[in-house]
Amino acid sequence: MGKNKDEKKAKGGKRGAGSAGDLTPADAFRSPSPPVALSAISTERGPIGPADKEEAAEALLDLGVELDDLQSRLFAQGTAGDRRRVLVILQGMDTSGKDGVINHVMGLMSPAGLSLAAFKKPTAEELAHDFLWRIEKKLPEAGLIGVFNRSQYEDVLVVRVHNLVPSEVWSARYEAINAFEKALVDDGVTVVKCFLHISPEAQAERLTARLDDPERVWKYNPGDVDERGFWAEYQTAYAALLEKCSTDVAPWYIIPSDRKWYRNWAIGALLAQTLRELDPQYPPPSFDLEAERVRLKEKLLL
Amino acid sequence: MGKNKDEKKAKGGKRGAGSAGDLTPADAFRSPSPPVALSAISTERGPIGPADKEEAAEALLDLGVELDDLQSRLFAQGTAGDRRRVLVILQGMDTSGKDGVINHVMGLMSPAGLSLAAFKKPTAEELAHDFLWRIEKKLPEAGLIGVFNRSQYEDVLVVRVHNLVPSEVWSARYEAINAFEKALVDDGVTVVKCFLHISPEAQAERLTARLDDPERVWKYNPGDVDERGFWAEYQTAYAALLEKCSTDVAPWYIIPSDRKWYRNWAIGALLAQTLRELDPQYPPPSFDLEAERVRLKEKLLL
Repeated sequence: MGKNKDEKKAKGGKRGAGSAGDLTPADAFRSPSPPVALSAISTERGPIGPADKEEAAEALLDLGVELDDLQSRLFAQGTAGDRRRVLVILQGMDTSGKDGVINHVMGLMSPAGLSLAAFKKPTAEELAHDFLWRIEKKLPEAGLIGVFNRSQYEDVLVVRVHNLVPSEVWSARYEAINAFEKALVDDGVTVVKCFLHISPEAQAERLTARLDDPERVWKYNPGDVDERGFWAEYQTAYAALLEKCSTDVAPWYIIPSDRKWYRNWAIGALLAQTLRELDPQYPPPSFDLEAERVRLKEKLLL
Repeated sequence: MGKNKDEKKAKGGKRGAGSAGDLTPADAFRSPSPPVALSAISTERGPIGPADKEEAAEALLDLGVELDDLQSRLFAQGTAGDRRRVLVILQGMDTSGKDGVINHVMGLMSPAGLSLAAFKKPTAEELAHDFLWRIEKKLPEAGLIGVFNRSQYEDVLVVRVHNLVPSEVWSARYEAINAFEKALVDDGVTVVKCFLHISPEAQAERLTARLDDPERVWKYNPGDVDERGFWAEYQTAYAALLEKCSTDVAPWYIIPSDRKWYRNWAIGALLAQTLRELDPQYPPPSFDLEAERVRLKEKLLL
């Protein structure tokens, strides 16, 4: 498989990646060097990717087959002592599509190989610990693909925007997060941090659509509209974390998310590239295969 | 949807259920009254279900669409304070297909609405507590579908077969489990206990196939062959738990599992019936919809 995989990697996925030469998804979506001017970065599409919804659906189907295979290998090698694992972090404004990515991209793989965690408003117990305490407890084990719906970054987002702690406290957290992630990487975690970048217009549409759909109105939280009032402050806070925490060992990716189909393809392609580069392998037997064949034959006769 | 759903329920699913009149999957697979003679129960098929692999694949695809919708409703109502949740327990001999059910049936739903736990050999910490301690910690929250790959029943299976504790200890556990499950049911958990029933011949085939496939040999554990030597003892232990722990509030189902396609269909159909009967509903807004429409319009203008 090696050859074939390298070819795919160079093209950044099998489909719809031809428009910008040999850019991989990681190249295409990597957060730029500081300063990060979010308003200058497209919320619609990056330099590569499918042209329309139909092409995206087809590409995602192919990616799903590949993701499922790669995940299965990662899981298998995890059972044989390989410590490698993946942590996908999803961050973005309300309605940016964190749940949608979990349903439509992570849902392409087996639930047995996933480790999901959603970080909501911290509980009293969580607040009585340092901000990374609740994060540590939800890290994926060897062989798994962890997915965080929100993360440690909430502590430099909502906390910063609403001054929930003094500025000297939240401002020290960027470095703490970098050190935390460095330690994870050193221990075999590949960290894939995705900022789902949407425009205020797309959010307005989605909030309105939720109100008008009886099957989705439960997702509508009047508080989201209040938070929308802090759009500029949130964009500033996002730019700051992209500038300070997009490190070489754990880079941030900016995923244009105004179109759900583009967003899903982009994250699927980025995750597939990540797994391809890990190149997980089904482990060889830990026992003497020939001897076991003989033993099994004897035992089965009983 | 109510009418339509009742019709489907009565037929035990849309497809392939005609052969035994109006038997539902729950009727068709429910463990019989004691004594349970496992050797007299088919490992190939029950009284209802698809006739072949192709029909099963089509039926499972349909079930997947329905399961995904029902799971989404269950999740939604869970966010609005409804405590109901589901716990699927998968038990069976090695190679009976517990992992396969998770991949191919549970994988039809969104990972966000699932809560998976696999119970392996207990750790030293787990052994230092009562046998239900580790189980409690993995129970699904409101709105979720929990799936246990092995469960509290290991403590009356491997523990009984290998005399890991005195017989007066394991023999007291049936009643403890019934009381535990009764409390769960009283708290809003629907417990769906599936025994994946395979023949020794099917196991022999699967063990041999694993040895011969480089992509699956990692799943082969020489210890499984040793355990196979206790086949009769395990069947006795399974019969005992089916007799003692198939209660009205938390019945056991015996799933013929020699054919993977039949097994997957049966569990998918049983879970769909369970969810249909729960009849989960998207919750109405918890706020004044009209007032919020006006407020949103104003806010979006900013």
